[in-house]
Amino acid sequence: MFEYKINSKSKKSKARVGFFNTPHGDIITPVFMPVGTVGAVKTMSPADLETAGAEIILANTYHLHLRPGENLIKKAGGLHKFIGWNKPVLTDSGGFQVFSLSEPALKRRGVKTVKPARISEKGVEFYSHLDGSRRFMTPEDSIKIQESLGADIIMAFDYCPPANSSKLKVQEAVSTTHRWLARSLKVKKRSDQLLVPICQGGVYRDLRFFSAETIKSFNLGANAIGGVSVGEKKEKIYQAVEWCTDILPEGSPRYLMGIGYPEDIAEAVERGIDMFDCVLPTRLARHGVVWKKSKSSVKKIKGADYGYEQVNLLKSKFKGDLDIIDEACRCKACRGGLCKSYLRHLLLEREPLGIHLLTFHNLVFVFDLVSDLRESIKSGTL
Amino acid sequence: MFEYKINSKSKKSKARVGFFNTPHGDIITPVFMPVGTVGAVKTMSPADLETAGAEIILANTYHLHLRPGENLIKKAGGLHKFIGWNKPVLTDSGGFQVFSLSEPALKRRGVKTVKPARISEKGVEFYSHLDGSRRFMTPEDSIKIQESLGADIIMAFDYCPPANSSKLKVQEAVSTTHRWLARSLKVKKRSDQLLVPICQGGVYRDLRFFSAETIKSFNLGANAIGGVSVGEKKEKIYQAVEWCTDILPEGSPRYLMGIGYPEDIAEAVERGIDMFDCVLPTRLARHGVVWKKSKSSVKKIKGADYGYEQVNLLKSKFKGDLDIIDEACRCKACRGGLCKSYLRHLLLEREPLGIHLLTFHNLVFVFDLVSDLRESIKSGTL
Repeated sequence: MFEYKINSKSKKSKARVGFFNTPHGDIITPVFMPVGTVGAVKTMSPADLETAGAEIILANTYHLHLRPGENLIKKAGGLHKFIGWNKPVLTDSGGFQVFSLSEPALKRRGVKTVKPARISEKGVEFYSHLDGSRRFMTPEDSIKIQESLGADIIMAFDYCPPANSSKLKVQEAVSTTHRWLARSLKVKKRSDQLLVPICQGGVYRDLRFFSAETIKSFNLGANAIGGVSVGEKKEKIYQAVEWCTDILPEGSPRYLMGIGYPEDIAEAVERGIDMFDCVLPTRLARHGVVWKKSKSSVKKIKGADYGYEQVNLLKSKFKGDLDIIDEACRCKACRGGLCKSYLRHLLLEREPLGIHLLTFHNLVFVFDLVSDLRESIKSGTL
Repeated sequence: MFEYKINSKSKKSKARVGFFNTPHGDIITPVFMPVGTVGAVKTMSPADLETAGAEIILANTYHLHLRPGENLIKKAGGLHKFIGWNKPVLTDSGGFQVFSLSEPALKRRGVKTVKPARISEKGVEFYSHLDGSRRFMTPEDSIKIQESLGADIIMAFDYCPPANSSKLKVQEAVSTTHRWLARSLKVKKRSDQLLVPICQGGVYRDLRFFSAETIKSFNLGANAIGGVSVGEKKEKIYQAVEWCTDILPEGSPRYLMGIGYPEDIAEAVERGIDMFDCVLPTRLARHGVVWKKSKSSVKKIKGADYGYEQVNLLKSKFKGDLDIIDEACRCKACRGGLCKSYLRHLLLEREPLGIHLLTFHNLVFVFDLVSDLRESIKSGTL
């Protein structure tokens, strides 16, 4: 279980195509994992996800812990059964969510109404976003919750400092993350779940080096890179990814957390990343925004023979636009012949079908993108 | 076009199974038309509607006139093309919506913030629910709008008085409705649309008789019964339906507007009704409520070998309920093995997938109900 076989390797870069085995089936990498925060990828049924091309989905430990609670999900036979998805699932550790409730993170976002989380060696004290109730989560708690949820791949509870943190702060986060990883491994019981450690270190080369070497030494079968998606410049992100993938073993899948935009996915694949998750395709859809292939676009995608544009269908110029988003797209909206004008109408009417159709379109875009990147790797163009 | 062939007739009652031909295909009656107010049945894609079993859908002239406007839809190639639904469509006249903005109707609902509509011989002055702008709609306008929208079946602009109106008021509504029908026929141009007249008359036998005889005399190929769904007692509704179907010709489909509950549909089928529309299956779903077959239930359905219950999944007793709604149901949620606890969780999280799954379930329930009623007619049990 959890074997990773490299099927094809680029001669030009660190990009590769691989098969990652899990208890609920194989994943072909590079892979994009849509985010199903509360146990559902926004508006998408399991059948929709399969049709769109999802191979694995991500669910959020923080949200599911607060509601409906991991005990109920365990009683229901685990997350797969509870949500009706029989393919691989990854749960995050809840770390990112509780840290986004920390004082500097709240300050950055201008939030004053939520009590900040307090971090100690033991764990994190935070206040539920649902009812403000005081909660405490330790690395051990996170593992226990994730074992109850029963995902195929679970994540270590890491300390993810806000972007632009001081080096001292990031250094502290790295050390804490490593100590918490060791504690997590001590309590982990289930052998049918893979625990993935997370490399921290922000944009500091020596810290990334240290963190990557440390998690590598645990030899856990897959490795993740965290702390790069929030608020940093793209070049810094690419650089940090490169430092990490220079160290993280080639024989295991590498997961870049919280990325991202199509061009970022391609850049990261080139640097040896195999797994991605991001709320963008689903979140943008909720705001009326779609990704669309475009040859003339300024946004190029490395390894793909197309660029893309990000189109806001709510703009008034689409009011009378009777063309579909993309003639070549296989999504429900495009294949169904639904024009931009109609989609815009549904969005303005706050009809959930509108958000669903845009979500489906964006997910198809990104699933097809990783599929195209696989082909580029095989054909030697990436 | 618009032929109606009776395929099977009950020996016990006025119930019958028929084929109703339209430019976008045949409808088998009795039929239930889900309501797609703004050009979409809430959360349901055209493919979803087909899978659930929809044969014809209803769209609202009032809403589509206000947004996005019939001119845009005409330019897009008509409603079928605009919404991606290639099967029959019926548009209402907008009458019911503008009259629900009339003073007595607003008073009944306790609404004080909307300016009341004013009815004159010429038509109805009303204020848009979107922006409060003053509008005027005549029977001729309604036909023109419906010709631009391009549904297969269009409805005459009728005067639908609120429930519990005085007999004098209802009498006035009946006469106005008839005069407006004559005006509608004068302006109607398209031969590929069937205009359906509406019988009014409230719960008054002589008025129903007069109205049914009048619209029958126009010999228009289908007839509708309006003004029975709002606020009247069930027995009065059944009685009014019976008076009408005694008169409305057997050789044409009869459409009972705005009904309804499963038991009401069965009672009306028994009285010779062929077509139904109602927001209930979709509206109840939005409030967490599902219909569920139940042999022991108090709510019996004539002609069906089952009763049903109306279940509110938001109730706390379903928090830990790991059973699906109905083992025998073929809907996405039930067939997908999704338990009540998960559905309740999605509803509480305001995840649109929850509403979608409940809508799908309720629509399957009602499509299967009319299908079962057809079988009961054929087998002679209704």
